[in-house]
Amino acid sequence: MSLITLTTDFGSVYPAAMKGVILSIDPQATIVDITHSVPHADIRAGAFALYSVVPYFPKGTVHIAVIDPGVGTSRNSIVISAGGHFFVGPDNGLMVPAASRLGDMGIYKITNFGLLGDISTTFHGRDVFARIGAYLSEGMPLEEVGEMTADYVHLDFGKVDVRDDFISGQVIYIDDFGNIITNIQASDAFKTFLIEEHVILFGNTMPFLQTYGYAEKEGLLALIGSHGFLEIAVNGSSAAKVLNIKCGDEVRIKKS
Amino acid sequence: MSLITLTTDFGSVYPAAMKGVILSIDPQATIVDITHSVPHADIRAGAFALYSVVPYFPKGTVHIAVIDPGVGTSRNSIVISAGGHFFVGPDNGLMVPAASRLGDMGIYKITNFGLLGDISTTFHGRDVFARIGAYLSEGMPLEEVGEMTADYVHLDFGKVDVRDDFISGQVIYIDDFGNIITNIQASDAFKTFLIEEHVILFGNTMPFLQTYGYAEKEGLLALIGSHGFLEIAVNGSSAAKVLNIKCGDEVRIKKS
Amino acid sequence: MSLITLTTDFGSVYPAAMKGVILSIDPQATIVDITHSVPHADIRAGAFALYSVVPYFPKGTVHIAVIDPGVGTSRNSIVISAGGHFFVGPDNGLMVPAASRLGDMGIYKITNFGLLGDISTTFHGRDVFARIGAYLSEGMPLEEVGEMTADYVHLDFGKVDVRDDFISGQVIYIDDFGNIITNIQASDAFKTFLIEEHVILFGNTMPFLQTYGYAEKEGLLALIGSHGFLEIAVNGSSAAKVLNIKCGDEVRIKKS
Repeated sequence: MSLITLTTDFGSVYPAAMKGVILSIDPQATIVDITHSVPHADIRAGAFALYSVVPYFPKGTVHIAVIDPGVGTSRNSIVISAGGHFFVGPDNGLMVPAASRLGDMGIYKITNFGLLGDISTTFHGRDVFARIGAYLSEGMPLEEVGEMTADYVHLDFGKVDVRDDFISGQVIYIDDFGNIITNIQASDAFKTFLIEEHVILFGNTMPFLQTYGYAEKEGLLALIGSHGFLEIAVNGSSAAKVLNIKCGDEVRIKKS
Repeated sequence: MSLITLTTDFGSVYPAAMKGVILSIDPQATIVDITHSVPHADIRAGAFALYSVVPYFPKGTVHIAVIDPGVGTSRNSIVISAGGHFFVGPDNGLMVPAASRLGDMGIYKITNFGLLGDISTTFHGRDVFARIGAYLSEGMPLEEVGEMTADYVHLDFGKVDVRDDFISGQVIYIDDFGNIITNIQASDAFKTFLIEEHVILFGNTMPFLQTYGYAEKEGLLALIGSHGFLEIAVNGSSAAKVLNIKCGDEVRIKKS
Repeated sequence: MSLITLTTDFGSVYPAAMKGVILSIDPQATIVDITHSVPHADIRAGAFALYSVVPYFPKGTVHIAVIDPGVGTSRNSIVISAGGHFFVGPDNGLMVPAASRLGDMGIYKITNFGLLGDISTTFHGRDVFARIGAYLSEGMPLEEVGEMTADYVHLDFGKVDVRDDFISGQVIYIDDFGNIITNIQASDAFKTFLIEEHVILFGNTMPFLQTYGYAEKEGLLALIGSHGFLEIAVNGSSAAKVLNIKCGDEVRIKKS
């Protein structure tokens, strides 16, 4: 009854090699793809994808996450234990928001390379993380991967400035609808804006609504998305295209 | 031995949240993605995708389908029982062609919200349909979702006009090869056209053949696709690009 | 505990019909997608995708591979047994590099159509290969598919010319990062080039390194990829776009 998720920027084929490795070790594993289409090397977008789905998985799930531009260099490999879940991947911050969302983190540096076979310099997803993940899902004690560490790369979704008449923050994810997801949490958004009020983003005035279908067709709207963050959308089209916005852009959302 | 399929326009990440919900309720479920790349909000294209594959799934399969531009508004949520399969999704017609293909439909309005936990306004795929689908796959009696109803949104693949020398209809799906799938069923096509005859579409004359490889390289052809509908293709290329055709376009196919 | 992989150029929806067929026959099968986004009808690219992952799957795995521009014409359908794995698909060379990588090949022509039901002219992935694959994964003896044959379509990754000061070969795959994978094996590459030396491709000088992160940001590099072939990459971007290269292109890589 072991459950393993995969989050990568690999596109196709490479994830299948990881699945072959996992199923060779743990033939009963259920494997769920979170996504393999994170923009290449965009660690924060990958971190958001993982963060947004982990609460919906049961305790005991092993999350393997590999957005890893530093593969084969001196960056560390880690396992994080939090809230009964395990996270396996590179020490570049990718797994920190998701893990810390679930509970206190225990972080282990993967140093027991005796567990593994040959390791390529370019594909630790297959040669390190898939193997470790499968061993953990099979019940290997966490301590066997290596020593606990207090030293790791932190990552968060950036600074948010909440004022009476505006909130500024950043775009952390563009979903496949073209919805623009900011790092502004619902609790912060509601300090400044009320449902049915209008807000202004880059000169565009739009209503703050409860769902897409309440906006006019092809009209802009602000809403709290299903992930709990303030989101800018277009009803029936791509807000990212309409506003020409991308991950990492700064946003300043004003009261109308 | 429960089997659940997913049909959405979500792209990546969001389907994984649905899978987490399903596997939290029913850890033994096998989940099959029909597609997550239906053109956004194109209910009829999604309906065709589902319609084209359901006969290949065994009785007892639960099909969760979420192309849902009206999420969070007043549209209903329903379960359809037909031919031993279950369909779970919004009441917007999406599941009607697939369900009615399998047998007489019993339609239940989802009103037993006590079964569910918190429900967001924007992601009923995760908060309503995944949960209901998993409960049904686990054996929950259908009556527990709510009352049976005779009132639902109908959808079909549109009008077809079959004449001695032409058939007119519509494009219902463009597949990933760029093959143009019309709403003209094989039985209707054969009333007007014979294999190896030529047909004319938008001024292009092409042979009506049994398979792609019988056309000349890069040549247009008409054929009955594997879904049982008249299809326009190019051997080795995309007919949709060559003819600049999209879903919903009217087609009039004449004898040569 | 049966494991089945799928490799196609189908995009979405069609693979789901194959999965429905497989799970109707063998409800316990675990199905892994290798890829469904091979460039349409590019048999050699599909052959490389399959070749690159098969060593990571356990003995007993059934690999169904369908890049099949000749579907419904006179081309044969075959099963290849090699190294304890099975390969099921069209006789067009697609499965030959992967199978022969695993061991001596035993090739069987699928002629026992009594095993199958109705067969469309355009979708043998669903009507022939998925069924045969599921029966094999359930334990059906290989001999039941048809007679062994010595006659089959061969395919390899093309000629490589290794000299003291250059190697010439071909591009066999572009991965989803835009990395350019050649048919030059590591053992051949090391006859001519040493790690940290520079090489020249189409007038571009680049270092030969162990991994992406050792190149400068946005800089070209050559490396041995995780598949064991010489690869041209850009650290943080797409080498295929930067160099405007595609599958099948000839490459001549010189010492600097």
